[in-house]
Amino acid sequence: MVSTATDVMAPAPAGLAPYLAAVEELFRAELRSALPQVQQLLVHVERFRGKMLRPTLVLLAGLAAQPEAAADRPIPPLGETHLVLATVVEMVHLATLVHDDVLDQAEIRRRGATVNHLHGNEIAVLLGDWLISHAYYLCSSRAGAAAARLIGQTTNIVCEGELAQNFNRGNWSLRESDYFDIIYRKTGSLIETACRIGAAQTTSDRSTIEALARYGRQVGVAFQIIDDVLDLTGQAKAMGKSLGTDIDRGKLTLPLIHFLATAAPTHRELLIGLLESPEADRVERVRQLLIPSVSVAYARRRAEILIAQALAAIDILPASDARERLRYLARMVITRQG
Amino acid sequence: MVSTATDVMAPAPAGLAPYLAAVEELFRAELRSALPQVQQLLVHVERFRGKMLRPTLVLLAGLAAQPEAAADRPIPPLGETHLVLATVVEMVHLATLVHDDVLDQAEIRRRGATVNHLHGNEIAVLLGDWLISHAYYLCSSRAGAAAARLIGQTTNIVCEGELAQNFNRGNWSLRESDYFDIIYRKTGSLIETACRIGAAQTTSDRSTIEALARYGRQVGVAFQIIDDVLDLTGQAKAMGKSLGTDIDRGKLTLPLIHFLATAAPTHRELLIGLLESPEADRVERVRQLLIPSVSVAYARRRAEILIAQALAAIDILPASDARERLRYLARMVITRQG
Repeated sequence: MVSTATDVMAPAPAGLAPYLAAVEELFRAELRSALPQVQQLLVHVERFRGKMLRPTLVLLAGLAAQPEAAADRPIPPLGETHLVLATVVEMVHLATLVHDDVLDQAEIRRRGATVNHLHGNEIAVLLGDWLISHAYYLCSSRAGAAAARLIGQTTNIVCEGELAQNFNRGNWSLRESDYFDIIYRKTGSLIETACRIGAAQTTSDRSTIEALARYGRQVGVAFQIIDDVLDLTGQAKAMGKSLGTDIDRGKLTLPLIHFLATAAPTHRELLIGLLESPEADRVERVRQLLIPSVSVAYARRRAEILIAQALAAIDILPASDARERLRYLARMVITRQG
Repeated sequence: MVSTATDVMAPAPAGLAPYLAAVEELFRAELRSALPQVQQLLVHVERFRGKMLRPTLVLLAGLAAQPEAAADRPIPPLGETHLVLATVVEMVHLATLVHDDVLDQAEIRRRGATVNHLHGNEIAVLLGDWLISHAYYLCSSRAGAAAARLIGQTTNIVCEGELAQNFNRGNWSLRESDYFDIIYRKTGSLIETACRIGAAQTTSDRSTIEALARYGRQVGVAFQIIDDVLDLTGQAKAMGKSLGTDIDRGKLTLPLIHFLATAAPTHRELLIGLLESPEADRVERVRQLLIPSVSVAYARRRAEILIAQALAAIDILPASDARERLRYLARMVITRQG
């Protein structure tokens, strides 16, 4: 068989497919309700799952944390707790998506209508609560006390990040360091936890766990930077979700912060004027101003540095298909178009 | 000292005061954030705590579940886990209040502005998420796996109740049995859990735990019936919160369901017409129609029966100050005016 470019980029998934299928099955089994209207909603939001990045990271970290296999000691398979934790992390993520769409007043998510758009904010708030509650229940029932504590600690951090972001809407002098703190909390922390929890389920070796946690942290923060860049530069069709919502909702992102900090005063004032304008075309005009600027390239560069750090962090792990797959996923974060 | 009527009704609180003070201290210690704006919000919502009914029930159930003290074997004090669980239950309750106020578009809660009224729905949604996350974190950190599982299971039930209630807004043919199922889920289940978890922390005796759980379930459902009656008949000033919101939001309550099921067809049509009317005075006109009807008395009677069942359930427990206090609280549910 001729090896395609895609084959070269995507190394063998380290026997991941059956594990991911088991996670999807568990996910579907957990997302059930005896109330027909709730069941309908759960079927609807299942499509938001999408990339399954976080559960994939739980499983890959679990595999990559294994010590090198010796001929007489084969690598043990992942245990049931890995599957439970992968499911829990995805349920937490789905809950944040549903509440995020309420906050962003978004109408489209993964080419489907958001819950708030279909059923109003009230049902969307309650469905998010339902999802987070079921995530905790699953975790505390089947994953052990340490994991439940780490999940709770992580959602504490995520909530603070979301609150900080909301309180800073329209704060045109938000510092870059505060932006990084916010996106670490709201996005990086859960991806870090996915890697940490997967690794800790396999090994108790501190340096292995911390290497994978650092990988997750840097990948997570880079992921959010690129998400913000794509919200600015992307095509709604390719992304399959509402775009320009950051500008529309006064959310500060790295290109914006960089532009406001470095542009000539007249350009800075022009941008703030547009951001605060009530005109319908203001989102489009902000895009026209920012997209050709060095600020988008700057943001991409910052993400690239984080990805380089993530790649370096897992150098200490023994060579494995799982480690290769982690490297591939990290590079994907900065090359994806949608 | 002359014994007043209040003294007669309120038996000695079974040495509860120091425990409740410890719970309040723990509550305040847990509700902290390094973000100044979040900290301000937490101070604001602390006033919503109010009656502390649920933590009181955790503690009283913990005391009432103790076997009769023998002269040579004094009753052991409540443990730290009781305090943690009392705090967790109150945090869960506070989270549901904050999200409820978003759903009800309420403006006043315990004589203070609601979070959504002060800061908008987005901050209120996130603050509710923050509170529930911290409740889960505290529980999984300090209360043991069984308790964490029970809390998760309970919030699963609460969310389904809230969702069912929302899906049934404006459903004028909602059956009484469905109403009871909804209010058990959204209110009864957490009060049942408060009693069950407090008792289970003291004893492993099944019949004692189930007696207190049943007490909590019946008290909780009765509490919600009376809450619904007071939303209809009460004075906003005495209640210290927005009233008439049930009618305003198309929420079916027991007086309404009874009226719709038993009134003459013309009265039934008149009521539905008012409920669906866009007129500003419709809430007042629904009140004028319902308050003098037998339907309010019917709802109160149903609550009284539940309270009688709750009182009967704890007859099997050994006599104690705590049991007397539980009886007093149950009676308060049906006599309170606000």
